[in-house]
Amino acid sequence: KPTFDPKEHQHLRYNPLRDSWVLVSAHRMKRPWKGQVEKPPEDNTPRHDPNNPLCPGSVRAHGEVNPEYDSTFMFDNDFPALQPDAPDPGSDHHPLFQSKAARGVCKVMCFHPWSDITLPLMQPAEIRKVIDKWAEVIVELGAEYTWVQIFENKGAMMGCSNPHPHCQVWASNFLPNEAALAERCQRDFLQKHGEPLLVQYARMEAQAQERVVVENEHWLVVVPYWATWPFQTLLLPRRHVPRLPDLTAQERDSLASIMKRLLAKNDNLFEDSFPYSMGWHGAPTGSHLQEDMSHWQLHAHYYPPLLRSATIRKFMVGYEMLANEQRDLTPEQAAEQLRKLGEEHYKMKKT
Amino acid sequence: KPTFDPKEHQHLRYNPLRDSWVLVSAHRMKRPWKGQVEKPPEDNTPRHDPNNPLCPGSVRAHGEVNPEYDSTFMFDNDFPALQPDAPDPGSDHHPLFQSKAARGVCKVMCFHPWSDITLPLMQPAEIRKVIDKWAEVIVELGAEYTWVQIFENKGAMMGCSNPHPHCQVWASNFLPNEAALAERCQRDFLQKHGEPLLVQYARMEAQAQERVVVENEHWLVVVPYWATWPFQTLLLPRRHVPRLPDLTAQERDSLASIMKRLLAKNDNLFEDSFPYSMGWHGAPTGSHLQEDMSHWQLHAHYYPPLLRSATIRKFMVGYEMLANEQRDLTPEQAAEQLRKLGEEHYKMKKT
Ligand SMILES: O=P(O)(O)O[C@H]1O[C@H](CO)[C@@H](O)[C@H](O)[C@H]1O
Ligand SMILES: O=P(O)(O)O[C@H]1O[C@H](CO)[C@@H](O)[C@H](O)[C@H]1O
Repeated sequence: KPTFDPKEHQHLRYNPLRDSWVLVSAHRMKRPWKGQVEKPPEDNTPRHDPNNPLCPGSVRAHGEVNPEYDSTFMFDNDFPALQPDAPDPGSDHHPLFQSKAARGVCKVMCFHPWSDITLPLMQPAEIRKVIDKWAEVIVELGAEYTWVQIFENKGAMMGCSNPHPHCQVWASNFLPNEAALAERCQRDFLQKHGEPLLVQYARMEAQAQERVVVENEHWLVVVPYWATWPFQTLLLPRRHVPRLPDLTAQERDSLASIMKRLLAKNDNLFEDSFPYSMGWHGAPTGSHLQEDMSHWQLHAHYYPPLLRSATIRKFMVGYEMLANEQRDLTPEQAAEQLRKLGEEHYKMKKT
Repeated sequence: KPTFDPKEHQHLRYNPLRDSWVLVSAHRMKRPWKGQVEKPPEDNTPRHDPNNPLCPGSVRAHGEVNPEYDSTFMFDNDFPALQPDAPDPGSDHHPLFQSKAARGVCKVMCFHPWSDITLPLMQPAEIRKVIDKWAEVIVELGAEYTWVQIFENKGAMMGCSNPHPHCQVWASNFLPNEAALAERCQRDFLQKHGEPLLVQYARMEAQAQERVVVENEHWLVVVPYWATWPFQTLLLPRRHVPRLPDLTAQERDSLASIMKRLLAKNDNLFEDSFPYSMGWHGAPTGSHLQEDMSHWQLHAHYYPPLLRSATIRKFMVGYEMLANEQRDLTPEQAAEQLRKLGEEHYKMKKT
């Protein structure tokens, strides 16, 4: 019998942050692809479009007028999934028909006044302003809400309906499913092993190097051992930091720098604007601000859909939806591909 | 304060089969959509294409030749994600770097010799043959494997790379994540409430009617109370049946009939071939065949991606991937839309 080779032999890997398994079948990359081919992202976004509701000076859906902002700009989502005052559905429910109240707010945050720029093409000082704004909104909304989810959908393939560089912030009075999972897994790990899960993990990955994509004095980016999306990455501080607002000025500058390097590599992979959904997971807020949250380590997940090229994505469909997540190359192969790429953005080279 | 109205006020609903919550924000359907528009499915598939590896008489990737089949046809997947003899990655792992062996087989099953037909356009007797083949493969692979996942990816939007009507069967020596969840939830429910979860649920939904899409003597299709995809449906037997092979001849005919009715309604919704991923969940097999599995009820999930039209899908992205699944219309609204549609396939009316 041949000896085990993760690139040739399918196996399961454990995701300790979600308490679930992913099927790694790297030999599947050999199959030809005859399925759907995506439209490549359009490269002709005008710098300023007075009809785009995210641009400085534009009129938005309900008549508000944006200021002539010249850095970041945050406003209330005009079509929020969460509103602060929804009535309670009551609590006397049959076990098969349970509902509960959901209250919250949804905000939109523009990264830059220009529509034709993305994070990896912004200056470190501009990215730093985005980071400061993220920290601010966690403090502001976290005072009232249990969970403040900062997330960015980038690219039409990820359901983003506006090319202007922006992210969203949805705060809620409940712990969402993914947050509850991360909470439970990190809590159990600290109890069992005496060290926060992601603090130990970052140290071990920094030592092994095999899955590291970029690193600096304060931060580390890896393709996690349990990655499900082909080029999924995990951004981790080296120091134990529960939430974004806890970052020092130096750590924030350092974060701006590593984000720029990671995202340039991502764009360089297929020489195109790389779509993804990303988001921050920090310790729960609201009433949890008073609790011991030492099991939590701040981190950001990047979930990009592309697999083979700028137009061929990984479909998480039948088997993945009904049975088990499955990936077609090993996390080590993905990390190596990303690591080898240059950090100068391909668009900068061409001009 | 206004009284609670599920169509106007966001709330959370509990999914007792997955022990998780879905955020229902029905008022979001009011927002305009300026995002990605999908290519509508192509309607010019030839009935027979000698270069299509799924057609009768075709040569497949590794040189095998398909028989001139005239009903269903099952063969080993030429690029399987699971193989029967992968070596074991060993078991002496650090808690953050755990892997385990995955062994199995992957098969492909053609529904019909023609490439230009889909299940709702097939005759009930032809669909019955598909059902018999499903039952057979559960018996055959279930003798050895713990879980036999039958699933169909339909439409390019769902990653299906071949228009020929077919499904897949992936059998594994492990319980996939989704199966493990359904196993635990159904086991706990029976213990707590003295009746199998989905047996009780089907009875209550049949009585309430509010979420019923189609029903007959033996089967019931509902948009479940906890549906995440806009037009997600759940197909349930009325009798307690743990696995597909346990169905009687009458129940199989009745299943063929209700599948045809459901899928015709689905196609009629946007007058186009309705994409989805679907799959069967029955009691685990292999060594579990000898165990008491009375908590399990056989069921099929249909997960269709469309939201507003044949070209506008629901994106399960940023918030959904990082925080919580979210839907933009209530399950009751979706059920009503589907219920009101005729059962004669729109293509049959036009010709
Ligand atoms: O096996 P297929 O149809 O080529 O591939 C499709 O279904 C598989 C199982 O759900 C997925 O892993 C693939 O991403 C998808 O493209
Ligand atoms: O709010 P947007 O960008 O219009 O919408 C996008 O992100 C939301 C949050 O992840 C999703 O619910 C939507 O399906 C998606 O299209």
